[in-house]
Amino acid sequence: PSYPDLHGFGRRNLGISPDEARNDMIYQMGALTAFTQSKKLQHVKPHGALYIRAGQDPLIAEAVARAVATVDQSLMLFGLSGSALISAGQHCALTTVAEVFADRAYEPDGSLVSRKKPGAVIQDPDQVVKQALNLVKERFAVAVDGSVMRLERDTICLHGDTPGAVNLAVRLRHAFDDADVEVLALGKR
Amino acid sequence: PSYPDLHGFGRRNLGISPDEARNDMIYQMGALTAFTQSKKLQHVKPHGALYIRAGQDPLIAEAVARAVATVDQSLMLFGLSGSALISAGQHCALTTVAEVFADRAYEPDGSLVSRKKPGAVIQDPDQVVKQALNLVKERFAVAVDGSVMRLERDTICLHGDTPGAVNLAVRLRHAFDDADVEVLALGKR
Amino acid sequence: PSYPDLHGFGRRNLGISPDEARNDMIYQMGALTAFTQSKKLQHVKPHGALYIRAGQDPLIAEAVARAVATVDQSLMLFGLSGSALISAGQHCALTTVAEVFADRAYEPDGSLVSRKKPGAVIQDPDQVVKQALNLVKERFAVAVDGSVMRLERDTICLHGDTPGAVNLAVRLRHAFDDADVEVLALGKR
Amino acid sequence: PSYPDLHGFGRRNLGISPDEARNDMIYQMGALTAFTQSKKLQHVKPHGALYIRAGQDPLIAEAVARAVATVDQSLMLFGLSGSALISAGQHCALTTVAEVFADRAYEPDGSLVSRKKPGAVIQDPDQVVKQALNLVKERFAVAVDGSVMRLERDTICLHGDTPGAVNLAVRLRHAFDDADVEVLALGKR
Repeated sequence: PSYPDLHGFGRRNLGISPDEARNDMIYQMGALTAFTQSKKLQHVKPHGALYIRAGQDPLIAEAVARAVATVDQSLMLFGLSGSALISAGQHCALTTVAEVFADRAYEPDGSLVSRKKPGAVIQDPDQVVKQALNLVKERFAVAVDGSVMRLERDTICLHGDTPGAVNLAVRLRHAFDDADVEVLALGKR
Repeated sequence: PSYPDLHGFGRRNLGISPDEARNDMIYQMGALTAFTQSKKLQHVKPHGALYIRAGQDPLIAEAVARAVATVDQSLMLFGLSGSALISAGQHCALTTVAEVFADRAYEPDGSLVSRKKPGAVIQDPDQVVKQALNLVKERFAVAVDGSVMRLERDTICLHGDTPGAVNLAVRLRHAFDDADVEVLALGKR
Repeated sequence: PSYPDLHGFGRRNLGISPDEARNDMIYQMGALTAFTQSKKLQHVKPHGALYIRAGQDPLIAEAVARAVATVDQSLMLFGLSGSALISAGQHCALTTVAEVFADRAYEPDGSLVSRKKPGAVIQDPDQVVKQALNLVKERFAVAVDGSVMRLERDTICLHGDTPGAVNLAVRLRHAFDDADVEVLALGKR
Repeated sequence: PSYPDLHGFGRRNLGISPDEARNDMIYQMGALTAFTQSKKLQHVKPHGALYIRAGQDPLIAEAVARAVATVDQSLMLFGLSGSALISAGQHCALTTVAEVFADRAYEPDGSLVSRKKPGAVIQDPDQVVKQALNLVKERFAVAVDGSVMRLERDTICLHGDTPGAVNLAVRLRHAFDDADVEVLALGKR
């Protein structure tokens, strides 16, 4: 689910209230759920600017997590590792999934560098692989100021709309294989 | 559910395909369902121009009925009495609800006079009451050409957005009481 | 300008009234005009399903032509050759541009075969070239039933979103050169 | 013109870029202009959250002012008195109109108290009249912290969608009459 801003593909911040956030979440989850009658919806990951805001604003995080719990208490909730969204999900007794990013630069506080800034998306494949291995094997990332921070991780994101994303995914998978990292579907083991 | 045409309040025909009709139905039913977790959705009545078209076009009627059955086989489906939508609902093994109209004029074939034509909405309260009693007590309506047709009826519609609708509803209710017509919530008895 | 139906890319019919058609036209022309301050808007061609309907429905044709004249009496109005839109444009004293289609099949009455029917878009490049030369050189087209009709033509359309459109355009241009047909920008000579 | 957020009536902030702000402004001004062929557009006042943001963010202010100048250099530009939007309008050589508010509370820096905070809209008619007279006669306002600030004013706004707005307007007009304040149409004298 994302901000109701199709024109901006959900990547522009929209100053909605917690009540509006809750309603927008339920509306979009409900619409999707109806198309998945044969398969159960498994997890929810807010998209774009709503994901960012729910990671930072406790009131919006709470509204998002409550909406997920309202629709189905057994849904898993994705959130930026260490963010307000993970806390809100735990507060609502949801199974939370701490997400880290292979191809996004980090601020020293564990948030993602804004897409409005240069260097927000890591272009160098070697850098992407290195950050991914650091996160998965060692649970740390190096922020843009050189500082090191520890990050829990249940899942790692690689953006599918970055140019060269498929090649990058192949490289990453090989690097995981070489490092004896097993890639599992969500919820396995 | 209606055509995805908020600007026109769903009252303008939109030339969607059966596949699009199915998806639009599921999308809107799903979004609504998610807001009704404590109460189960009971019935579905397509709105406006989609209701009219689903009453006339067998392919759209089939798409609408299948969408309802996909979301929940136990949902009741409203349709214009005697129309293609009722047939499609029966074909999909849904419980159908044949609807007649207190305040809309009828064509000789049992369809409603188009809102583009004068006289589509009956303004005279006496006429509304008379048509309602004819339909409910005697199962017939008089079309605009004076011909009489038999119509099954499980429910009767009075539009809430007609000027004076509340007064009309009061008058209608009194007329039903005087004629020993019992008004029941849907699904009772 | 097209029907206000972004989701359907303007290719689904929308049952708007003549007043709504006029307002939708003015709105879209105005928005576009404001982006063209350094260049003057030259011509208006309704898009998709609105083009088709304005070619068939005299009330909508009149509303469309009046809207164009309201915005700027010196605008040229494109319309399907021989259609109600050309007549309405002439009635509003606009310069009309009769359009024929290289890659769309014709009904015997000069209308285009609906995109809902097979064969609406001509796929065979030889057929496209042949129809184009017939129209441009001889002012006739052969309809799907084999009948021949005469069509005036000021401009010829080749759809840019047909697969292989660029190659087709190159072939067509060579065929025009070989047949001594001169291609001119609109309004030249 | 406002943020392209019909659902939120333009009152929610939307994180558009300066380029997007420029395009949204031109699009909406152009669409409106086309409906005013017999009367010339006189002035432009951004609506809601875009008005607030253009008063605070110099890049958005510049984009808005440039858009107005692009459409018509003779248009007047409304902006919050003392704000970045007034500066940007002057920089683009537009005639600017410094706006003050009768019914909105002020922060000490001359910005409006956010609608998300209590007391943003002044409810007490006596307070509204007092603030209006202070602004119009004496060119000052008292902020929520009690500080006094000087504000230029070419026009004063009273919101039409506040409950009791009409009565408030009548009271305000009488107060102006009693204080020998002449109310003139924009651009007169």
